[in-house]
Amino acid sequence: MNYPNNIIKKKYQQVAHGNRGMTLEKAINNSNQYYIDNNRALIYKKPTPIGIVDVTYTTKHKIIDKAYFKCPSTLDYNGLYQGKYLEFEAKETKSKSAFPLSNIHPHQINHIRRVIEHQGYAFLIIKINLEHYLLWGPDFINYLEAHDRKSLPYQFIKEQGHIIKEKYQPALDYLTVIDEIIKKGE
Amino acid sequence: MNYPNNIIKKKYQQVAHGNRGMTLEKAINNSNQYYIDNNRALIYKKPTPIGIVDVTYTTKHKIIDKAYFKCPSTLDYNGLYQGKYLEFEAKETKSKSAFPLSNIHPHQINHIRRVIEHQGYAFLIIKINLEHYLLWGPDFINYLEAHDRKSLPYQFIKEQGHIIKEKYQPALDYLTVIDEIIKKGE
Repeated sequence: MNYPNNIIKKKYQQVAHGNRGMTLEKAINNSNQYYIDNNRALIYKKPTPIGIVDVTYTTKHKIIDKAYFKCPSTLDYNGLYQGKYLEFEAKETKSKSAFPLSNIHPHQINHIRRVIEHQGYAFLIIKINLEHYLLWGPDFINYLEAHDRKSLPYQFIKEQGHIIKEKYQPALDYLTVIDEIIKKGE
Repeated sequence: MNYPNNIIKKKYQQVAHGNRGMTLEKAINNSNQYYIDNNRALIYKKPTPIGIVDVTYTTKHKIIDKAYFKCPSTLDYNGLYQGKYLEFEAKETKSKSAFPLSNIHPHQINHIRRVIEHQGYAFLIIKINLEHYLLWGPDFINYLEAHDRKSLPYQFIKEQGHIIKEKYQPALDYLTVIDEIIKKGE
């Protein structure tokens, strides 16, 4: 089919605009699915860890009747990119001036240290002031060790973080940011 | 404290014997915890994926009132070893002659192919005839492609799999098997 250019453009913009209404989790799941479909990486959201209290067995199924959410000690997403292990957490804040560290559990911070130590890629994706930043694990840990703070100032995120471009697909192209970080580090 | 040698030996044997009664899942969780504690690798069991139907919000907690188990499309365990991504499934069979492939979902077999393609380490740990074998992903896939079968014969597992030694700790030292496989492949 042939559409006049302005119609294609309009459609594209509608969809592209649509991304802005996506929750951060949806935008990342969309991107991960895009990466899987295009054979670029295998990255998944881990299921939420739960503690099961009661289960009913029917002839065909096992149904959970009572359960509770457990506190996570690792990060939300992990996967495989070009043979390397990566793991990250994605969080957004409504604050315009800083990202509160209460968003990341102390166990998770410790886990980030260990992933780095074992030569994996650990990082955060932070949505603040409607922008998305990838904060590289070592930069995050170095900041924590140098400053005794309960939040990351927006200025720090802006300077040390890497802005993630919003696209039609993938909604958040964070792997391209990682490519650039690795290229610089070589 | 000083204990006579025979008492220490007796204690050790009791615990070592204890491993035999462990379920496969416990033996692997024990090994993964040992690897984490000894800073050798970061490997975790993924939480079981569930679909949540009903949730109650109390002032302090969020309690799941109804949920069901989802069919997994990836493998049970994944993690980081020396910068590399690894993922595996652990299953046991009571059959003495073969490992039924109904233990592994078609989605999971496809996932194993993709992990290999993206340069990760994918494998199975199979308990059969009270022995534990590590079956390397490419060997498993090659077998599937060459044979139209619904099970893996014990003879094949014995010949192509790598026996995992049972120890006091880690209960199943599968990383040592991986070291050997990688060394041979170099």
